[in-house]
Amino acid sequence: MSETPAPSPRTRLRRRPERGRYDEASLFAVLDAALVAHIGYLDEDQPMVTPTTFWREGRTLYWHGAAASRILARSGSGAPVCVTVTLLDGLIVGRSGIKHSVNYRSAMVFGRARLVTGLEAKRAAMAAFLERLYPGRTLELRPSSDVELAQIVVAEMEIAEASVKVKAGGPLPYAPDEGWPAWTGVIPIETRIGAPQPDPDLGVRAPGRGLSPYREGARLDEALAAAAQSGLPVSA
Amino acid sequence: MSETPAPSPRTRLRRRPERGRYDEASLFAVLDAALVAHIGYLDEDQPMVTPTTFWREGRTLYWHGAAASRILARSGSGAPVCVTVTLLDGLIVGRSGIKHSVNYRSAMVFGRARLVTGLEAKRAAMAAFLERLYPGRTLELRPSSDVELAQIVVAEMEIAEASVKVKAGGPLPYAPDEGWPAWTGVIPIETRIGAPQPDPDLGVRAPGRGLSPYREGARLDEALAAAAQSGLPVSA
Repeated sequence: MSETPAPSPRTRLRRRPERGRYDEASLFAVLDAALVAHIGYLDEDQPMVTPTTFWREGRTLYWHGAAASRILARSGSGAPVCVTVTLLDGLIVGRSGIKHSVNYRSAMVFGRARLVTGLEAKRAAMAAFLERLYPGRTLELRPSSDVELAQIVVAEMEIAEASVKVKAGGPLPYAPDEGWPAWTGVIPIETRIGAPQPDPDLGVRAPGRGLSPYREGARLDEALAAAAQSGLPVSA
Repeated sequence: MSETPAPSPRTRLRRRPERGRYDEASLFAVLDAALVAHIGYLDEDQPMVTPTTFWREGRTLYWHGAAASRILARSGSGAPVCVTVTLLDGLIVGRSGIKHSVNYRSAMVFGRARLVTGLEAKRAAMAAFLERLYPGRTLELRPSSDVELAQIVVAEMEIAEASVKVKAGGPLPYAPDEGWPAWTGVIPIETRIGAPQPDPDLGVRAPGRGLSPYREGARLDEALAAAAQSGLPVSA
């Protein structure tokens, strides 16, 4: 369980193999630092890419949507799916066109997704998502009704194969650019939490449970990774 | 040119039609505020989703990669492609599971991509990308060599059809949650520029041309949108 399967021709990086990682810890680190994935699936002969919030439990990815969603029906039909997660970390600014690039972390996960069936299984899955994102928050919420759970669909996909690519650091020395008088370096890009906006007409003023990872100024990737480590256990 | 084609069954939003926008200004606003797109294409019978930097000129999207890239060859083969761009703007925190959500802007663009052929066309495309991202910077860079241009491949795709989805704002009143004593509101998510990291061993210390949109603390979406308005004209 500590290693993903050996890379196949589909996931082995042909170019820049030094950027590729195939161990489970690297994969989970990227997945757990993100909230949005891009789900790729086929709708008749048209490739579709749908952004959605997702979560991970062990080697299974989950996403959800409205019961009427065409996207969920298609992506959860058992057909091959590709789930890609990307975090943009910086602009690499070079002294020639070819030395401009970006720093990033990305994971590409392959598998076949199916829909979670049964009200209790959906209830458990959605509670697990809330706990993954807002640890402890399920204790504070009005419990979901059966009618509400019937309105949503949950897809689950075991990770069959995956690859991770990470590019970090700054511009490397490059002979043709030597002595060229231009600025070169990295412009970091950081996704952070802004000032929370409570709705005083609707809710209470005391900060809610599960929100502590999302303090103003925190990095979103770090908040998500920390939250993923501290949710309550949820059982179906 | 001010309107995208009327939505077809593929792009018309069936659910939550109030979140859907089909006018060109809304589409360009999302595309120009982003640097990374997720390209969906088919590799034999496997849907693939590859993250890549991209840029827009008029109604054409471009992306590039290494000449040896399988991704570019597949996504630029003339087969149907889906290009999706997503900006995550906030967490909506409700008082029950079903009222948790996210604020976002996303665009889904359909078309058929082909590779840009010819050294001069590639030179112009790459200069346009640099100017789109770093206005004026091409004046300061060492010009690209033919050998460097031969190492890359550029794909271009005219927008055949597109849809935009935007969700903004906070939790709405919801009868079953009335009086439930939990915090509710929005936790904003902002992607911003960090402190630039010049490489003093390689480049000069004076800030480079084209970097002014990326001052520390600026929002990346606003910097990218502003840069897109101010590049130098580039001709092939």
